[in-house]
Amino acid sequence: MDIASLQAQHPEHWRLACAIRVLALDAVAAANSGHSGMPMGMADVATVLFQNHLKFDAAAPDWEDRDRFILSAGHGSMLIYALLHLTGYEDMTLEQIKNFRQWGAITAGHPEYGHAKGLETTTGPLGQGIANAVGFAMAEEHLRARWGAKIQDHHTYVIAGDGCLMEGVSQEAIGIAGRHQLSKLIVLWDDNGITIDGKVELSDITDQRARFAASGWDVFDCDGHDPADIDRAITAAKASKRPAMIACKTHIALGSSAQDTSKGHGALTDAQLIADTRAVYGWEHGPFVIPADIKSAWEAIGSRGAEARAAWQERLSALSATKQAEFARIFARDLPARLPAAIRKVKKTAVDAPKKMASRAASEVVLKAINPIVSDTMGGSADLTGSNNTKTDDLGMFETDNRGGRYVYWGIREHGMASAMNGLALHGGIRPYSGTFMAFTDYARPAMRLSALMGVPVVYVMTHDSIGLGEDGPTHQPVEHLAISRATPNTLVFRPADLVETAEVWELALQQKTTPSVISLSRQGLAPVRGTHTSKNLSAQGGYVLADAEGKRRVILIATGSEVEIALKARELLQAEGIGTRVVSLPSMELFNAQPESYRKRVLPAGPVRVGIEAGVRAGGWDQYLLGERARKSAFVGMSSFGASAPAERLYEEFGITAENVVEQAKTLL
Amino acid sequence: MDIASLQAQHPEHWRLACAIRVLALDAVAAANSGHSGMPMGMADVATVLFQNHLKFDAAAPDWEDRDRFILSAGHGSMLIYALLHLTGYEDMTLEQIKNFRQWGAITAGHPEYGHAKGLETTTGPLGQGIANAVGFAMAEEHLRARWGAKIQDHHTYVIAGDGCLMEGVSQEAIGIAGRHQLSKLIVLWDDNGITIDGKVELSDITDQRARFAASGWDVFDCDGHDPADIDRAITAAKASKRPAMIACKTHIALGSSAQDTSKGHGALTDAQLIADTRAVYGWEHGPFVIPADIKSAWEAIGSRGAEARAAWQERLSALSATKQAEFARIFARDLPARLPAAIRKVKKTAVDAPKKMASRAASEVVLKAINPIVSDTMGGSADLTGSNNTKTDDLGMFETDNRGGRYVYWGIREHGMASAMNGLALHGGIRPYSGTFMAFTDYARPAMRLSALMGVPVVYVMTHDSIGLGEDGPTHQPVEHLAISRATPNTLVFRPADLVETAEVWELALQQKTTPSVISLSRQGLAPVRGTHTSKNLSAQGGYVLADAEGKRRVILIATGSEVEIALKARELLQAEGIGTRVVSLPSMELFNAQPESYRKRVLPAGPVRVGIEAGVRAGGWDQYLLGERARKSAFVGMSSFGASAPAERLYEEFGITAENVVEQAKTLL
Repeated sequence: MDIASLQAQHPEHWRLACAIRVLALDAVAAANSGHSGMPMGMADVATVLFQNHLKFDAAAPDWEDRDRFILSAGHGSMLIYALLHLTGYEDMTLEQIKNFRQWGAITAGHPEYGHAKGLETTTGPLGQGIANAVGFAMAEEHLRARWGAKIQDHHTYVIAGDGCLMEGVSQEAIGIAGRHQLSKLIVLWDDNGITIDGKVELSDITDQRARFAASGWDVFDCDGHDPADIDRAITAAKASKRPAMIACKTHIALGSSAQDTSKGHGALTDAQLIADTRAVYGWEHGPFVIPADIKSAWEAIGSRGAEARAAWQERLSALSATKQAEFARIFARDLPARLPAAIRKVKKTAVDAPKKMASRAASEVVLKAINPIVSDTMGGSADLTGSNNTKTDDLGMFETDNRGGRYVYWGIREHGMASAMNGLALHGGIRPYSGTFMAFTDYARPAMRLSALMGVPVVYVMTHDSIGLGEDGPTHQPVEHLAISRATPNTLVFRPADLVETAEVWELALQQKTTPSVISLSRQGLAPVRGTHTSKNLSAQGGYVLADAEGKRRVILIATGSEVEIALKARELLQAEGIGTRVVSLPSMELFNAQPESYRKRVLPAGPVRVGIEAGVRAGGWDQYLLGERARKSAFVGMSSFGASAPAERLYEEFGITAENVVEQAKTLL
Repeated sequence: MDIASLQAQHPEHWRLACAIRVLALDAVAAANSGHSGMPMGMADVATVLFQNHLKFDAAAPDWEDRDRFILSAGHGSMLIYALLHLTGYEDMTLEQIKNFRQWGAITAGHPEYGHAKGLETTTGPLGQGIANAVGFAMAEEHLRARWGAKIQDHHTYVIAGDGCLMEGVSQEAIGIAGRHQLSKLIVLWDDNGITIDGKVELSDITDQRARFAASGWDVFDCDGHDPADIDRAITAAKASKRPAMIACKTHIALGSSAQDTSKGHGALTDAQLIADTRAVYGWEHGPFVIPADIKSAWEAIGSRGAEARAAWQERLSALSATKQAEFARIFARDLPARLPAAIRKVKKTAVDAPKKMASRAASEVVLKAINPIVSDTMGGSADLTGSNNTKTDDLGMFETDNRGGRYVYWGIREHGMASAMNGLALHGGIRPYSGTFMAFTDYARPAMRLSALMGVPVVYVMTHDSIGLGEDGPTHQPVEHLAISRATPNTLVFRPADLVETAEVWELALQQKTTPSVISLSRQGLAPVRGTHTSKNLSAQGGYVLADAEGKRRVILIATGSEVEIALKARELLQAEGIGTRVVSLPSMELFNAQPESYRKRVLPAGPVRVGIEAGVRAGGWDQYLLGERARKSAFVGMSSFGASAPAERLYEEFGITAENVVEQAKTLL
């Protein structure tokens, strides 16, 4: 790789690419932190992609049929910020670039979804971008099948580094994309041979080409600094019938004295190094100065797609008014007007014909009402379809020959599933929900956190939510997972007690536009707890009085999900002894905490002793209600250790989560 | 595959293997739950492995030089329970088999480490076993280099299913094993083509042979029901110079009407099906009946290794007394007698020459004292060596040509790293510690939970533990991760405030024999908070009075880690206004909660108002001390949202985690 000859052979390209490079150098130097080397190394690939291939219009960043560009190697954020600025995205001003990594700037250390237009997803935790991209590409396939290629027909491009490819989630993503032959997914691998600790071979000798090929991808190569070669490879990848990986051989921190070293991965801030690198580039302009001709060449690239977008807009306008309204609805994440009545009907039927039912089965009943009405749902499971009760007959299977199918067999890939769900939702037009066992929250955690951080309203259907799953034992029995999700900001955790509450919490989950939901569901059968039909969604208050005390109120039992039934039994026993007992069902702590103090006080008045009941650890938010919220004396009946392997009833007895123990605890407090 | 001809060609093998099959069928039927099909499918492979290859002695399950056998596909637990019973492990009685999945039995639904001898690790959460196995194989390589092949020289065998191979962690494990050319690691892939949702191709088309080969493995094939072919493949794999994968083509639920179906994956409990299957097997004995000749043939297999073990014992006894004592010490997880003095010296030096220092840097100082003394530590990092400060010069790099090296460059593989750490510790003779950014707890969670569940004393070095990491922004800033680890049973979470506390918590972490530790460390520099040297390890009490009130005690500030410095500053401001203020440093909530009430009351007496200070969410255990433990009025200064990208000082200001805000909160309460 000889910079002088590259420059000589492709002078215009060279200047465009160097505009990215110097902006990255200058911004990182000004911030005195960040990652210079990746943008310097991948500037040529990005330039060719944006100049010749990427379908976009900087003036219309939300164009629903744009190609999606995902920087999975998110630490190289200055690459995308430079591209957005240069191509003329309105919000990405030079001022923002100068304020890289500063308080209030949209140019965060890693690309943060929602901060700036053109950032399709938040990246930085490695491997997430490539796994999100699988969801983006699935969304495109699905919407193309439903709306036709005139309305949805675009590519998903990903820049991924060695870090992304070493993370296990990338294998799950590669597996899903290969299985589904997502031919419009193109991964550009920044093959620079360097990680933070040193050369890649310090920790990996994997032949990435062979690895992708093994999962059904087409693999291409290019010299990542030769624009003609890059263009050839991208053109070939687009023509491929399978997902494509292009190994772009690059030099990290190209042209600097830190080139090809792990030092080059980080922040290059030395003034002399930067001056020397500018000289190597033949770049004679000061910090943050982009000559007008280069800026306007870049802006021309930014408006290259305007015509295509206008044509697309015409095609969209040619659709029937109903179809246009539906298209707008799904991208606005609005719910069909018919949904509330359908939910109420489920609730009414449940009250009219009560029966014992696991809440995972209740969830299936609710989904059977939702899916025919909410046409934008896509369901799935990480190889536990029959256990998670996530599939309804009308969905059809998402398949290579049935892209309109709405059910995905994700395989044993909780992490890849959750990350792809983020991508499905971020693409727009899809409401993903998928299931696994709640204990495997652990596997999906990195993506679940990003759902919350980005504000993506995906729905996690987490079944087998306690020791109540029984014989599979402690590896499969969540005890700390309600606590984990509740400790995560911007996450709604629902634990419904019966079919009525399950219908209510599904409605609440679907109403969210910027918050993910975790629905915690039992494996074991539960007795119905709601005996009277209410049109009102009582779960919307988070907690409510399910059964009030008869006589003087001396005890309040607070319970969630499968333990509400136990609370009701304990209440009967206490009432039989003349001890007035209220039962509060608490399907969502977050929603309860959001109620006004006056409401919370009505539900949890000072005075009575309180017992909290949940088959999880107390750390799951319980001290708020057992020590706070006007509490006096209180106790907790739940788990303080991992579970065990035995039939569910035996486990509840052995761990003392029984009506009898609740009664005993309450009486001790009185 | 023709059962009759297999039976005819290898009659003795057939009877041995069928003993496993019928025990699995009978135990699952008795429990009315479990997984019959996997043991039925892999019985032939397991029989050949145990009969001809596995080095073990059922009478000495803890023999340090035994081959390790790991059932990564843990749902097939009856396979290993049957093997342990048949070969004569004392604790695995027929009664235990009959009580499969019942309360108190050692035969849990999934193999639980510590329940029965011969279970090398807990498996069930898929992919963990194969990733643990990488740690086992590394331990063997390392100990062989240190002790010689006469003392340590054994194989690690893994049975893995499609589920294990779809989980991303398997790719991380494959990558690590391939990089390190762990030639004594042999993975037997149960290639039965079936998952719970149906055929594997429903969710995956990966060519597993090509995938393993891409990461530097040797790949072999066999007919998983033909004992001669299985033997040939295992023999070849043992001869390979690289880690080996054997694709064993098998039929799940062999010989039953559920063969080759997803139904066969689960619990086969139908009496007729079981009777028919017995007939196909030619097995004429009742439930749980193993004919004496078959049992004694299996017991002969179980004692096959007795001679080798006796010879090994002689070789061990021939070592010098010092060496024998050291060998015993490392397997007993005892600490060298010299360690306490070395820790005290670090503490004394820190007090004598105080300086501002990030606690991650403090951790490195402590490791420099520990590693030369505790020869059984192995350190590492998930590609953040310089940031996690986990490497000390004396360790040397674990390498193909330097197996005695004690530092591992794990690559960008937090999950694989954590799972391999479990394996290193479970093997015995190694004390693993390794680092990543604390936010990436999420990636390592499934393995961290298993450390706790199994009681494996690994040490997680989690640096960059708050918004104090600054510009990298919210993706990299943990806010809920202290809460996550604290909510997990049997986990010690340490957040030291300075070098003295860091030395103390490292000592505590190393003292653990059955509990993992999470050490939460700052990126940013911290002022020393301990001005007086004490020989006593004050952190052992979990929390202690760091600075007491002058005058009447009106305020107690409780803080951890980097926020202790803020508490001390706030105390100065409050005392300047004549408000007597105590500061409690709380490096470990778990250890503080374990103190007697009398001690806790001395530290946190009733009366004064309290302010808790931690740059994480309040859900991280704070309500215990702010609402409970005799609390009256209180406030919390910390995070209630995700962080942001900006310099650390600015973030602390913007999120209000400042001495000034603490003062304001305290005064509002007074």
